[in-house]
Amino acid sequence: MNQKLQKIRESIQKSGVEAYIIFNTDPHGSEYVPEDYLVIKELCGFTGDNAIVIITQNFAGLWTDSRYFISGEIELKNSEFELMKKTSESESSFVSWLKNNIKKGSVIAFDGKCTMSSIFLDLKRKLSQAEIIVNDKLDLTYTFWTNRPQPKITPMFILDKKFVGEESKEKIEKISTKIIEENSDALLIGDLFEIAWLLNLRASDIDYCPVFRAFMIVFKDKKSMLFISKQRINTKISDYLSKLNVTICEYTQITSTLEHLPAKLSILVDTASINAHLYSSINRHCKIIERKSPIQILKAQKNNTELLNIRKTMIEDGIAMEKFFYWFENQIENNKKITELDTCQKLLEYRKKSPNFISESFQCISAFNQHAAMPHYAPTEKDNITIEKDGVFLIDSGGQYYTGTTDLTRVIPTGKIDEEFAIDYTLVLKANINIALAKFPQGTIGTKIDAIGRIHLWKYGKDFGHGTGHGIGFCLNVHEGPMAITPSINKVAFVPGMVMSNEPGIYIENKYGIRIENLITVINSKYPEFYEFETLTLCHIDTRPIKTELLNQEEKDYINNYNEKVYKILSEYLTDNEKQYLKKQTQKIN
Amino acid sequence: MNQKLQKIRESIQKSGVEAYIIFNTDPHGSEYVPEDYLVIKELCGFTGDNAIVIITQNFAGLWTDSRYFISGEIELKNSEFELMKKTSESESSFVSWLKNNIKKGSVIAFDGKCTMSSIFLDLKRKLSQAEIIVNDKLDLTYTFWTNRPQPKITPMFILDKKFVGEESKEKIEKISTKIIEENSDALLIGDLFEIAWLLNLRASDIDYCPVFRAFMIVFKDKKSMLFISKQRINTKISDYLSKLNVTICEYTQITSTLEHLPAKLSILVDTASINAHLYSSINRHCKIIERKSPIQILKAQKNNTELLNIRKTMIEDGIAMEKFFYWFENQIENNKKITELDTCQKLLEYRKKSPNFISESFQCISAFNQHAAMPHYAPTEKDNITIEKDGVFLIDSGGQYYTGTTDLTRVIPTGKIDEEFAIDYTLVLKANINIALAKFPQGTIGTKIDAIGRIHLWKYGKDFGHGTGHGIGFCLNVHEGPMAITPSINKVAFVPGMVMSNEPGIYIENKYGIRIENLITVINSKYPEFYEFETLTLCHIDTRPIKTELLNQEEKDYINNYNEKVYKILSEYLTDNEKQYLKKQTQKIN
Repeated sequence: MNQKLQKIRESIQKSGVEAYIIFNTDPHGSEYVPEDYLVIKELCGFTGDNAIVIITQNFAGLWTDSRYFISGEIELKNSEFELMKKTSESESSFVSWLKNNIKKGSVIAFDGKCTMSSIFLDLKRKLSQAEIIVNDKLDLTYTFWTNRPQPKITPMFILDKKFVGEESKEKIEKISTKIIEENSDALLIGDLFEIAWLLNLRASDIDYCPVFRAFMIVFKDKKSMLFISKQRINTKISDYLSKLNVTICEYTQITSTLEHLPAKLSILVDTASINAHLYSSINRHCKIIERKSPIQILKAQKNNTELLNIRKTMIEDGIAMEKFFYWFENQIENNKKITELDTCQKLLEYRKKSPNFISESFQCISAFNQHAAMPHYAPTEKDNITIEKDGVFLIDSGGQYYTGTTDLTRVIPTGKIDEEFAIDYTLVLKANINIALAKFPQGTIGTKIDAIGRIHLWKYGKDFGHGTGHGIGFCLNVHEGPMAITPSINKVAFVPGMVMSNEPGIYIENKYGIRIENLITVINSKYPEFYEFETLTLCHIDTRPIKTELLNQEEKDYINNYNEKVYKILSEYLTDNEKQYLKKQTQKIN
Repeated sequence: MNQKLQKIRESIQKSGVEAYIIFNTDPHGSEYVPEDYLVIKELCGFTGDNAIVIITQNFAGLWTDSRYFISGEIELKNSEFELMKKTSESESSFVSWLKNNIKKGSVIAFDGKCTMSSIFLDLKRKLSQAEIIVNDKLDLTYTFWTNRPQPKITPMFILDKKFVGEESKEKIEKISTKIIEENSDALLIGDLFEIAWLLNLRASDIDYCPVFRAFMIVFKDKKSMLFISKQRINTKISDYLSKLNVTICEYTQITSTLEHLPAKLSILVDTASINAHLYSSINRHCKIIERKSPIQILKAQKNNTELLNIRKTMIEDGIAMEKFFYWFENQIENNKKITELDTCQKLLEYRKKSPNFISESFQCISAFNQHAAMPHYAPTEKDNITIEKDGVFLIDSGGQYYTGTTDLTRVIPTGKIDEEFAIDYTLVLKANINIALAKFPQGTIGTKIDAIGRIHLWKYGKDFGHGTGHGIGFCLNVHEGPMAITPSINKVAFVPGMVMSNEPGIYIENKYGIRIENLITVINSKYPEFYEFETLTLCHIDTRPIKTELLNQEEKDYINNYNEKVYKILSEYLTDNEKQYLKKQTQKIN
């Protein structure tokens, strides 16, 4: 490992650079980084997704957040890398480090292709105050990564209007209107989910993400250019794109295209998903207008066809879940040895039975007892444990379907129920229900909805360290913006069609973790100018740990009606045994 | 009225100015504008507190918000002034008007003394884009206001440490530390409440506000300068100030002092309370550091002595309220004619019985039925009505005491109780109770607390158009920053000692208004790193309109315990008849 570091140090010395920085992303700012861009993992073995590395001749540090403090210490133990703990959400700590440790007049460098321009511009501004020069064109990955994997190229397919409800042509027209509204001529798109949404095309280039690697430019006249590996485009896709007035260009051609854009052209750029290399490539005589991508808010509002398909998907996903739970209970009852990984595998088998299933939507989180206390734990061969009796089992999983993306979490006791756990379980359920039942005026932001759920934990001095809910794509990213249900301020107001998770939790270190997660969508309320939520997920919520004295009648009614609905809709797809199991699990509470 | 307008127009023509603007404030940015600065009222008769006037040769417009749309139309009916309705909270609409109606290269002018520099700087920036020149030195009030009142000068008095808990010397030391922490040399203070707080001095220069007109500069060496009418300073105050190292200067000397500040001196300026004239007067070779005044957050956190005094004040204020309510019920029961104004007068009489009472803390809002539906209604001779049987009476009032400032609202049915009203009353009570009972982690902002109360109205499609709570001063402004419980985002986190109102409401046009208001303070919770509220106000909450089926046990317990506590503490100060009345009113609900 330290040999690789040595190679980088030799190269940075040759380049006359004081410090070399690596950010953990790909050229598209993807949350799930594809294998061939896991540069930091290759360099030092760190596997967390929040990571920034700085290397100088006498220092090597890795900045990450509290989720990865424990695993980071372990992964970096045998390396020269120092774990630098970020205390807040801001990236500022590594910038301060640079300011304090790099001499005036020195050069720091990184690969602009894997650095989003928002970070690049911010760094440039802050470091210019400290008279440090920023070089965004140094990629030293080649020096130490000899067997770097080839980019994954997977078959592309068209998602028909019957799935997504709107032709790509109509979407491009809307974007063209947005471009004109911003007094602009074009929109540059780097985010893979935005391109997939806009073109109604999917593939599987990144694990869990049904996307393909490409860049795109849409012009106000509704013509556009798609930069993509040309060899992957078959006749069908080629014809399809041609009808949409999309010119196909080689992936690498994006740079020269940006360099040669007509002077005075005004182009919309979302700096959060356009990398520094692209940003710097834009012809200097063009006008760059920095904006949140107009695709985000359109993509977030699912149309009626999408919502109809999502509701169907919930049935298929629910069937898989209930079949899985029946199997799970039997294994436990009959003292059969099952591990966390076994459950992930079994659940995947059940999901695969759906003809619409594509893949899991994220790495299955199957976590027993103390493992569940770490909200981001996912089992691997190394730390996989057996699920025992009298404990608490948490499973957080989801699927990519042609008909939508799912994500749900359930917690199941495997025997005797501890009193403290029962109280916490009930409080988490209470938070979940009160969000599900909330009504709120137009203009309401997620920060308020977050408080409306959390207050039920706060009353007992409890809280949890993650957001209550994230947006979710349609056969796209399981984490989708621009809105969110978070304690931090997110100013995007909720509007009908947005689909989000509702997933409060409580985590007790070394003991257990609780999270109850359903997907919800914003709908009109019967009260004018008010919205409310419809819960989409269909999978029974375990009532065994509920302390009924902590629930009011409205909350009890909610859980009884929910479980009744789950039984009613799903039971016809289950075997007699499974049905009987579900009947028992969905009995009313008093 | 139009003659006055004519005089202004003549003067602006002579001055070569295209448009003249008037903002509704005094040189200190006071919320309650003293009589001699009610320039807009004098010019056009408009009495609302949110007002901006623009006058050109062929246009006269007054911008205000929705609270004053109805009264504004009436007040401006016989004038040339057009009512310009602001639709959002932003001031942008009058700026847009200027941009759209004033030619490039023209000059617009206003009196910088009565324009806060935040507005001035914003205007200058926005209008320079439109190539409009801003002149901040034109005061045309003299042209039309011939019998302008003299500024009110009232006796000043020292608030002893036994009232405020902290000597002025200690406060000045803290401010000096803040100045040094900001790498600055001095702090310029324009806000009258900040000066009164810092010096532990009070007077009654403005109705409802125990302040005196002055400016102040505090230097980092703890010396300071007070700019004030010298003639009002008696020997006692003069000696007191001298011991505090405060140099007394004439009020008008502030300008030349700022002009002659030493070059390179760095001065902290809060542009929200420093007027444009002062801002522009600061020596150009000084460094202006724009910051929220450091006094705000210190002033907001009441110390233990202040809190102890406030709790005592609540007893005195509560006695007055309960005596008043006993009287009120008797008048109604015995069919005696009483008007809204009568009730204000009677309540004031009772408050005056306290030796610590100074004045009302704002104009008493006594509002019957449809009048209460206007949250900002206060009775005047013109619209005063009789309180009848079988209606709803709202009274929102408060006092300035040497020992604190009060503000509370109660709603009383005067006979038969309408079903819709009872539901709304219970929902408002529910919102109030759920805020009173909230626990929340450190770092929580008022926007979240606002949602936690409002959700109980939202569930029934109801809402209200004002904030749920404002900060409140100690023998100071009844509306005090920097924190607030509002739907809009206020980023100031709650900390112990902050005192705020908790006043949700429901308003049904032409029918009734409901608001239940108690003062609360932030205290430590038994849960580490959590806070909660203590309700300070002592005055029974009417249980007659409560729909008990809408309250859960915790909420019923709260109201029963609260009313029991009110009876327990206040009854010993009441006559037997009053006591009997209160006993009946505080009977437990089931």
